[in-house]
Amino acid sequence: MSLLVIGSLALDTIETPFGKAEYTLGGSATFISTTASYFLDGVRLVGIVGNDFPEKEIDFLKSKKIDLSGLEISKTKKTFHWHGVYHTDMNQRDSITTELNAFEDFDPVIPESFKDSEFVCLGNVNPEIQKKVILQLNKPKFIMIDTMNFWIEGKLNELRDTMKLVDMMVVNDSEAKMLSGEDNLLKAAKKIFDMGPKMLVIKKGEHGAMLITKDTVFCVPAFPLESVFDPTGAGDTFAGGFMGWLAKTGDLSPANLKVAIVYGSVMASLAVEKFSLDGIRNLSKEKILKRLEDFRNLTNFDFKSL
Amino acid sequence: MSLLVIGSLALDTIETPFGKAEYTLGGSATFISTTASYFLDGVRLVGIVGNDFPEKEIDFLKSKKIDLSGLEISKTKKTFHWHGVYHTDMNQRDSITTELNAFEDFDPVIPESFKDSEFVCLGNVNPEIQKKVILQLNKPKFIMIDTMNFWIEGKLNELRDTMKLVDMMVVNDSEAKMLSGEDNLLKAAKKIFDMGPKMLVIKKGEHGAMLITKDTVFCVPAFPLESVFDPTGAGDTFAGGFMGWLAKTGDLSPANLKVAIVYGSVMASLAVEKFSLDGIRNLSKEKILKRLEDFRNLTNFDFKSL
Repeated sequence: MSLLVIGSLALDTIETPFGKAEYTLGGSATFISTTASYFLDGVRLVGIVGNDFPEKEIDFLKSKKIDLSGLEISKTKKTFHWHGVYHTDMNQRDSITTELNAFEDFDPVIPESFKDSEFVCLGNVNPEIQKKVILQLNKPKFIMIDTMNFWIEGKLNELRDTMKLVDMMVVNDSEAKMLSGEDNLLKAAKKIFDMGPKMLVIKKGEHGAMLITKDTVFCVPAFPLESVFDPTGAGDTFAGGFMGWLAKTGDLSPANLKVAIVYGSVMASLAVEKFSLDGIRNLSKEKILKRLEDFRNLTNFDFKSL
Repeated sequence: MSLLVIGSLALDTIETPFGKAEYTLGGSATFISTTASYFLDGVRLVGIVGNDFPEKEIDFLKSKKIDLSGLEISKTKKTFHWHGVYHTDMNQRDSITTELNAFEDFDPVIPESFKDSEFVCLGNVNPEIQKKVILQLNKPKFIMIDTMNFWIEGKLNELRDTMKLVDMMVVNDSEAKMLSGEDNLLKAAKKIFDMGPKMLVIKKGEHGAMLITKDTVFCVPAFPLESVFDPTGAGDTFAGGFMGWLAKTGDLSPANLKVAIVYGSVMASLAVEKFSLDGIRNLSKEKILKRLEDFRNLTNFDFKSL
């Protein structure tokens, strides 16, 4: 099936305790579409970059068979630039610079050839933009949005408007609590279901992720690694693996949603092992399946009766 | 096989946001042995209570077919009493009172009939006492100790002496970090293996638990509950389920250790649903197996290739 991805493309400067990369390819749509490209060809990308966006990165995205018909290149502005510095424990980071540049004008027009997209992954952008995208589409089978505390605090009404139109939402645990006013995640999910989505993925960082639907709860741990090299993009990589698997299979059964969330975790665990996008630029099918197997050993057990 | 349990028996006063219970049966050995009694008959208990210990609780332990040959009843002192108050979020608690009473004199003498115990579960007590117990035993097949920050800070040398004699250790994540000086749990485990144990269970509270051996890592989530009624004894219940299953099966293979850690989590999740020991006083086999099945649905997924 077809997968449409909307979000940011950025040139990031990232500092972690392990090193520094300057003006390296980043952004939610970049991570999501690159990850999803391992699951299906022709991932449809809608985004905007500036006149400084490297030609070699365009070629990279093309090499992943990503359909760039919806990529706008600004003639006058530079690419979105974010500069972040991670603390020693890597769960904390400071944003040194956030220059929106061309991304400030992001007002996505969905190409005619993308309007029949069946699966839609809306990266973490202004919920008004997410809604405008959805309204341009021709009844997608499954719409997922990512969001963050910034929008919950600053654009709550707009976010709740958008939530009415989507099937699934991805948030982290503190955002789920903030949005629902409930500390318990099961209770939080019920309140969020009342706002529109039928399914929720709650990301818990180093503690993994939970999938909650009206009748299923599934937990997946974060893959235990001795060193996390750079957590940038882990959440977007997770979303790309999750939506990539769903779009590849077209199967929304509980059993297949579980596989999807594990593939999301598999891809995120591969991403954080290297700097920036490097962990997912050139993955072999074997490497992905090996990690999936490792996840199975990490979580599955044989049912043995008392 | 046989299971020996050493630890405290207490009369606790517990306050949670959901209620209060006064002088209710508690203590690590109580929770461990009661839990293990669902897996095998004749669990061997070594502990001490005071002259105020209710006869009906003796009868309760006997009804669980727990062998009380090693239970000392002080003629002059009262039973260990702890009074704890949980905060609204239940992850924090204050100890209002800790009266050791008879437990102050706890110097366990292992009955002759217990010395051939094959599985040994040493609850969270002074590591010097744990060592004295081990030295009285006749080559057990598997020894597990629980410990806590109090002993890591106050009796580190004694704890490290005891650790040389055991197969497995149970700690929570902050204790694993404190003991090893490593923030990363895999690295922490390696350092702890150098101190003696070949296996480690790291409890992560609401985030579940990890089993780490030299060649296996296994993660189990905490069971998602809408309300945790009283977390007292959750760790001990976990240990009781884990050791109960191992002693029942006598099988230390990686696959069976995984089942053991899930049974530990199953029993802990049932314990926290009610006050004090109430969650595990009268469980049916069906209720335990239903929760095991729920855990399978919560964590297991089908391997599906890309």
